[in-house]
Amino acid sequence: MRAARGAAEDPTVGQLSEGEILRRIAARTGRAAAAHVGPGDDAAVVAAPSGSVVATTDTLVHGPDFRLAWSSGYDLGWKAAAVNLADIAAMGARPTGLLVALAMPDDTRISFVESIADGLREACAALAPGCAVVGGDLTVSPTLTLAVTALGDTEGRPPVLRSGATPGDVLAVAGELGLAGRGLAVLFDRFRDPAGTPVPVDATRLQAGDPEALAAQLRPAPPIGLGPVAAVAGATAMMDVSDGLGLDARRLADSSDVTLELDASALGDDPRAAIEGGEDHALLATFAGEALPPGFRVIGRVVERGDAPLRIDGKPYGGPGGWDPYRDWDSVAG
Amino acid sequence: MRAARGAAEDPTVGQLSEGEILRRIAARTGRAAAAHVGPGDDAAVVAAPSGSVVATTDTLVHGPDFRLAWSSGYDLGWKAAAVNLADIAAMGARPTGLLVALAMPDDTRISFVESIADGLREACAALAPGCAVVGGDLTVSPTLTLAVTALGDTEGRPPVLRSGATPGDVLAVAGELGLAGRGLAVLFDRFRDPAGTPVPVDATRLQAGDPEALAAQLRPAPPIGLGPVAAVAGATAMMDVSDGLGLDARRLADSSDVTLELDASALGDDPRAAIEGGEDHALLATFAGEALPPGFRVIGRVVERGDAPLRIDGKPYGGPGGWDPYRDWDSVAG
Repeated sequence: MRAARGAAEDPTVGQLSEGEILRRIAARTGRAAAAHVGPGDDAAVVAAPSGSVVATTDTLVHGPDFRLAWSSGYDLGWKAAAVNLADIAAMGARPTGLLVALAMPDDTRISFVESIADGLREACAALAPGCAVVGGDLTVSPTLTLAVTALGDTEGRPPVLRSGATPGDVLAVAGELGLAGRGLAVLFDRFRDPAGTPVPVDATRLQAGDPEALAAQLRPAPPIGLGPVAAVAGATAMMDVSDGLGLDARRLADSSDVTLELDASALGDDPRAAIEGGEDHALLATFAGEALPPGFRVIGRVVERGDAPLRIDGKPYGGPGGWDPYRDWDSVAG
Repeated sequence: MRAARGAAEDPTVGQLSEGEILRRIAARTGRAAAAHVGPGDDAAVVAAPSGSVVATTDTLVHGPDFRLAWSSGYDLGWKAAAVNLADIAAMGARPTGLLVALAMPDDTRISFVESIADGLREACAALAPGCAVVGGDLTVSPTLTLAVTALGDTEGRPPVLRSGATPGDVLAVAGELGLAGRGLAVLFDRFRDPAGTPVPVDATRLQAGDPEALAAQLRPAPPIGLGPVAAVAGATAMMDVSDGLGLDARRLADSSDVTLELDASALGDDPRAAIEGGEDHALLATFAGEALPPGFRVIGRVVERGDAPLRIDGKPYGGPGGWDPYRDWDSVAG
C-alpha cells in the first residue's frame, strides 16, 4: 500500500467517497461480454445461455494468503481472478464474470486499489478473454481482504465433477505442478528478515528458475481455456489442484470412490515438489481413452478402490498434501 | 465468539481440519431447490432458467458492519443473507442460491460457525424459500468477515433497473424505513460503556418499540418476495434502500435522470428517521399507474429532472442520506 504517486494526487480511500472509489475501479475493470447489466445497479445480470450458472468463491486475506512486502496490488488482483477462474475451468466451464468484494483499511491509497483493478482486468484478458468484473462491494476493514466470486457457463455440456472417474481411465494434468510452491519457498527462505518478517524481493539474489517460480506464486497462469477443452474431449472427472496434488488427488479419488495410481516419473525433475506444492491451479482430469486433448499429459491411471485413495509408484501415499488454512497458517506478519 | 458449549466439545476452528468445518456447516445449511451441484466440488452449478443470472455481493466486517457484543453468529448469518437477498429482489428477481466466503480467526469456536450457518439457513427459509447456500470458502483472518454472493433468476422478465423511472410515475416503497437505523441508535446510545466499547444488550433497559428496532437492525427481514411481485406489476425502476432513503432516492433519480418528489407525510411518525436511517433494505420502486401491488405504499411521484434529484415537500433535499463506509466509520471497537 505504498504510494506510487505523491499523496496529494494519490488520496487514501478514507478521503474519497464510495462512489468516487467505485468510479475509479470501474474505469479500469472493463466490461464482460456476457454482462447484460454490469456494475452500478443493485445486482449484475450475466448471460447464462446453458440455463444454469457455474459459481465459485475464493478469498485472499492479508497475512494467511499474501503479504504486501511480496505482492503488489496488481499481483493480488491477478491472483484473486486466476484462482477463481481455475475453479470455473475445473467444471469444464467458460468464465463469464467476476464479482469482487474488497475490504480494506481506510488508509489504503487509491493507486493501490487501481492496481488491484488492473490485475483483475489483465488476468481475465490473458486467461479468460470476454470475462471481466461485473459487480462488487467495498467495505472498510482493518484486514485487507479480496473475496472474488466467479461465474461461468458450461456451453450446454454437463459440468465435469470430481465424482466421475472410473477404473480404467487415465489420469492426466494440464499446467504446472510444484512451481508455485517453489516460489513460496523462495519467498519464505530468502526474503524474510531475521525476525521472520517478509521483506521485498531483491532481484540480485534470485537464482536460475526463481523468477518463473515467483511468477507462478504471485501471478499464477492456470490453463483456464483447457477446462472446456477437456470437457469437450470427454473428461470423466476434473478438479483444479489448489492445495497440492497429494491432497487434491485424494479428494478426487474419494469423490469417485476409486484409487489413483500416480507415476512419480511423470511428475518432472522434482516429484516431491509436484506432490506437495499447492497454488499452481493445474487441472487434474481423468479420461476414458488414451487420446488426450492438447495440453494434458498422462501422470497415472484410475483403478478399483483399494485400501488407499492414492498410490505413488505402487505405494500408498499418506504424506503431506498441501495447504489447510486452519492447520497450516503460522501467522507470519508482513 | 463466546463458547456456548464446553471447550472440550466445542473446539476452535484452528483445532479442526477445513474438511471437518465444511462438513459441520454443510450439515446445517440445507439444499437449494435450484442447485444442480452444491457444495463439495470446485464450483456450484445453479439453475438459471431465464438464460441469465442475477448476481450481487455484500460483505459484513467485524468492526465497521457488526460488533460481536451486539450480534450473535445467528444474527450475522441471517443479516448477511438478508442484505444480499434484498439486492436480488431489487432487480425483480427470485433468489436461487448463496455463496458464502467466511474468513475468521483460528480461535473461533465451531459452535459460533454453526450459528452463522443456522442464521443463513433460516433467513433463506423465511425470506426466500427454496434459496440456500450452494457453495463457499473458508479462510483464516484476524478480522471476522462474511462475504456473501447471492444468485437469482428473473423468471423470464427483464430485470428492473434503477434507470427506468419516468415523469408521471408514482414513487412507492415496500418494507420498513428508519426502523433499523433506530435500532442502531439504541445500540450506540445505550449499550456502550463509558469508553465507547459495545456491551451486550440488557433487555431490562429496553423501552417500548426498542425490541422491534433492534430486530430490524440485527436480523432485518426485507420484503424479498415483493421484488418479483413488483416486477410482475410493471415496476419501471427499483432498488433496495440500504444506505438511507435520502441517499438512495437520489441514486435512483440520477440513474433515471428524473427528480423524485417525496411527501414527508407519507413517511410515518418520524420522517427524518425514514430519510436518514439505513439498513432497512426496503424496496423503493416506481410504477406507471396508481394501482400498486399489495405491500407497496405511495410516498411520492416522479417529475421531470429539475435542479435537484430529490425534493421533500417541494424543497430540494441535500441533507444527510445514509451510510458511506469510507466516510462514516468511526472505528468503534467491540
